[in-house]
Amino acid sequence: MASTPAQTLPVEKAHGTGNDFVVFADPDGLYDLTPAQVQALCDRHRGVGGDGILRAARTADSPEVKALLAEEREATWFMDYRNADGSLAEMCGNGIRVFVDFLVRHDLVALTSGQTLPIATRGGVRDVTVSNSGHYQVDLGRWQLVDTETLVHVPGLDVPRPALRLSVPNPHAVVIVASNDELDALDLSALPDVRPVPEDGVNVEFVVPQDPLITDGVGHIRMRVYERGVGETLSCGTGAAAAALAARHFVGDAAPHHWRVDVPGGQLSVRMFPTEEGEHVALSGPAVHVFATEVQV
Amino acid sequence: MASTPAQTLPVEKAHGTGNDFVVFADPDGLYDLTPAQVQALCDRHRGVGGDGILRAARTADSPEVKALLAEEREATWFMDYRNADGSLAEMCGNGIRVFVDFLVRHDLVALTSGQTLPIATRGGVRDVTVSNSGHYQVDLGRWQLVDTETLVHVPGLDVPRPALRLSVPNPHAVVIVASNDELDALDLSALPDVRPVPEDGVNVEFVVPQDPLITDGVGHIRMRVYERGVGETLSCGTGAAAAALAARHFVGDAAPHHWRVDVPGGQLSVRMFPTEEGEHVALSGPAVHVFATEVQV
Repeated sequence: MASTPAQTLPVEKAHGTGNDFVVFADPDGLYDLTPAQVQALCDRHRGVGGDGILRAARTADSPEVKALLAEEREATWFMDYRNADGSLAEMCGNGIRVFVDFLVRHDLVALTSGQTLPIATRGGVRDVTVSNSGHYQVDLGRWQLVDTETLVHVPGLDVPRPALRLSVPNPHAVVIVASNDELDALDLSALPDVRPVPEDGVNVEFVVPQDPLITDGVGHIRMRVYERGVGETLSCGTGAAAAALAARHFVGDAAPHHWRVDVPGGQLSVRMFPTEEGEHVALSGPAVHVFATEVQV
Repeated sequence: MASTPAQTLPVEKAHGTGNDFVVFADPDGLYDLTPAQVQALCDRHRGVGGDGILRAARTADSPEVKALLAEEREATWFMDYRNADGSLAEMCGNGIRVFVDFLVRHDLVALTSGQTLPIATRGGVRDVTVSNSGHYQVDLGRWQLVDTETLVHVPGLDVPRPALRLSVPNPHAVVIVASNDELDALDLSALPDVRPVPEDGVNVEFVVPQDPLITDGVGHIRMRVYERGVGETLSCGTGAAAAALAARHFVGDAAPHHWRVDVPGGQLSVRMFPTEEGEHVALSGPAVHVFATEVQV
């Protein structure tokens, strides 16, 4: 806390399909947390614990997003997202649902079912829509196929398998496996062997089509994910989007544009829809408040 | 919560050298948590998070420790300790410090520096003493050498190393390694290979004598630990005691009976002292309050 003495900060813990965050409001722009402070808050044994922190700041107080807003659209709130190691992060499909739910519960925004709120992130301005069921949908924007022949191998697969590469816009490699049993048997305790080795790393999703694959126009897949720099996680929002996009690609022209994606931490929903600038992909799911407390920072 | 409707339970998170717990007071014996409730509280992503829960119950309300107290000594408070998976646990050298600190902070006991409080646990009645520095010392009771030739191997060691086996009274195998560099290089991500394979498993400690080894009559070692059924942990109380006992054994007759033990999660202190029934070993260290909150159970 630059130049302020130690003080009591009300924080909350919340999660989206098991991807968990320490969330707090900073409407007056007082809290520029150091990496050490972020690490202390996210420490699972000695702190509140989380995959990262979400600071709710006003864009007017946040010089780092001013240039971004000038290029894109206006937004009142900036999701200042930091990874548990203290590094800056751009966007998080699970975190932004938790973030908007926090703003709504604390009356920092008024948002009713069907309404959309633009949120500034380091990855750009993202639209979040509240649904009837209390879920939140975030428009992740444009995606694209990456034309690279890729093979992935992990313990539990008999041979290296071909993967579909996608940018959402972070990099993903999606591998289709044959059955739920094969998915359960995969050993994702170590970095999957991806060839050719991607320069900046890649998130790897393993996906199983479920039976029935399509019900009432909605596709259904199940997945596990290895996140670059993290390991296997309970959920990865852009990973779920990449998995659904890959599943649709393999099914072909008759495939639906709406998918239910079962992740280890719960259930997400992915929709693809046309826009003037090309197809967008959107992710929706729950945001769950766990507890509120106060910490000294 | 058998037969009671969902209600708000005040809980705290606290840790001893990184071994962390969800702690709450149940002076009226209302909360007989199910394994599922314990798992939910200890869930690090979707709950408060901890290695286990510590329920502060009166022995008068706890039939399961009545027989124990009749055999041993009187105690007012029972440390109902459950592992994060919901299973019952006996004793925990780090947990009992956190437990007594909780009782003191909540005025459930009055305890000043130097005073001792007997605490009932499933492993027997244990004496806890408060020190001047706000640390807590627990008398772990008698210990003994186990006469079994044992070899331990893990990735990072050139060859299998001999281990000293001790009962504190849970089973330990202590391996002395040559340097801090060698200790840091050990790969403890998988179960160490212990031969002969112990029937009920064993906790394995890797210990490095520090330089200087003895200062003002206090020995100094550093350790890492692989706890059976858990994996590498930030701290293991009985493991620190076993490590100090092994170090004293190897140093021989001139060795001190007081050791400082550096664990990944902080610093512990181990003392050996004679009693009428034989030598006891005691563990002391900090208890740190992290945060208070309320949960629905």
